[in-house]
Amino acid sequence: MRIGELSDRTGVPVPTIKYYVREGLLPGGERLNRTQVSYGDEHVRRLRLVRALIEIGSLPIATVREVLVQVDRPGQDLDRQLGAVSRALAQVRQSGEAPSLEGVDEAMAIAGRQGWKHIDPRNDHIRSLSEVLATLRVLGLERLIDRVDDYARAAEIVAATDIELLQGLDDRDEVLEAMIIGTVLGDALFAALRRTAHVELSARHFKAPESTD
Amino acid sequence: MRIGELSDRTGVPVPTIKYYVREGLLPGGERLNRTQVSYGDEHVRRLRLVRALIEIGSLPIATVREVLVQVDRPGQDLDRQLGAVSRALAQVRQSGEAPSLEGVDEAMAIAGRQGWKHIDPRNDHIRSLSEVLATLRVLGLERLIDRVDDYARAAEIVAATDIELLQGLDDRDEVLEAMIIGTVLGDALFAALRRTAHVELSARHFKAPESTD
Repeated sequence: MRIGELSDRTGVPVPTIKYYVREGLLPGGERLNRTQVSYGDEHVRRLRLVRALIEIGSLPIATVREVLVQVDRPGQDLDRQLGAVSRALAQVRQSGEAPSLEGVDEAMAIAGRQGWKHIDPRNDHIRSLSEVLATLRVLGLERLIDRVDDYARAAEIVAATDIELLQGLDDRDEVLEAMIIGTVLGDALFAALRRTAHVELSARHFKAPESTD
Repeated sequence: MRIGELSDRTGVPVPTIKYYVREGLLPGGERLNRTQVSYGDEHVRRLRLVRALIEIGSLPIATVREVLVQVDRPGQDLDRQLGAVSRALAQVRQSGEAPSLEGVDEAMAIAGRQGWKHIDPRNDHIRSLSEVLATLRVLGLERLIDRVDDYARAAEIVAATDIELLQGLDDRDEVLEAMIIGTVLGDALFAALRRTAHVELSARHFKAPESTD
């Protein structure tokens, strides 16, 4: 197909498509002659993925590029590749500072209480977790930290659903793509559901009685 | 205290503090004379909040400003004010397009199946939810949509913990601050836990058998 049809099928404007190709987020099409370039279904699929990561996930271009590099890297075992993609996705929130030893111990203790036994203390997510815990403490929200096991239990429910969805897929590229979409859109999905639940529960608990004027 | 002490106590560099004051994220200090400005504990508290929103939450300056405007607006009932703060926090992910009627119906149906009866279909979170659902469909992840009730159930567990934490607080400003921190850091906390759980579950399900070379 021509670039105009690619644009129609994905809802991404032509100049944006050209920008993504220049930035290395989308492979170029096949050049048919001096003026014509042809794109295939793999471009449609990749473009939809890129668009979701940028528009819904609000990921920076550099992070999207790094994620795609990991997806397109051939020949590792799938668990390792899922880990690399997950690390690339996590870059957004990482600060430059090394986490404290106590912070890492605390994060590992949370994982331990959930029976998670395959977690390396050097894992980036353990690091993110210890950063968030440190910030909550500075802000005086120890009470939220006291309830962290409740959050971990809910996180495992969601993660189990995520992984179950991946297990139904045969194709390796599909597994990786579904993992990326599930992580990024899954975060947005969960955040929207959590906020909707807040509205409901806040109305039940904090709403002023209706005035009878 | 002087600005140097404010910087020491919060870990925010002096030029950054001045920038936040110029941007309206932090009230100016009290001017004692031509060269001295004095800051109080309320500046420490506000500065820690701003820092968390920007560094952990990755919120844009304009969103932080809008959130703080809602916090500092006096005299509404608390449920309404929590709603306004929540809407300001949600701006990050909103696109310009109006959601489809079907999308809103689908989002409201999810809320209905959870027994959430205080949700207005015009609510911003319902809109975010319908956008995410539409994107999942475009990307061919209907299977995730089929499991959305599992996510909603987990979201309610987390939201109930969030609200329970707020209920223990007396002071209105404390409730609003805790709600903001809980939302933004709570998202980061949950994301880190979910990803840690992914590592665990991915290792259990996808790990290649150890080589015995």
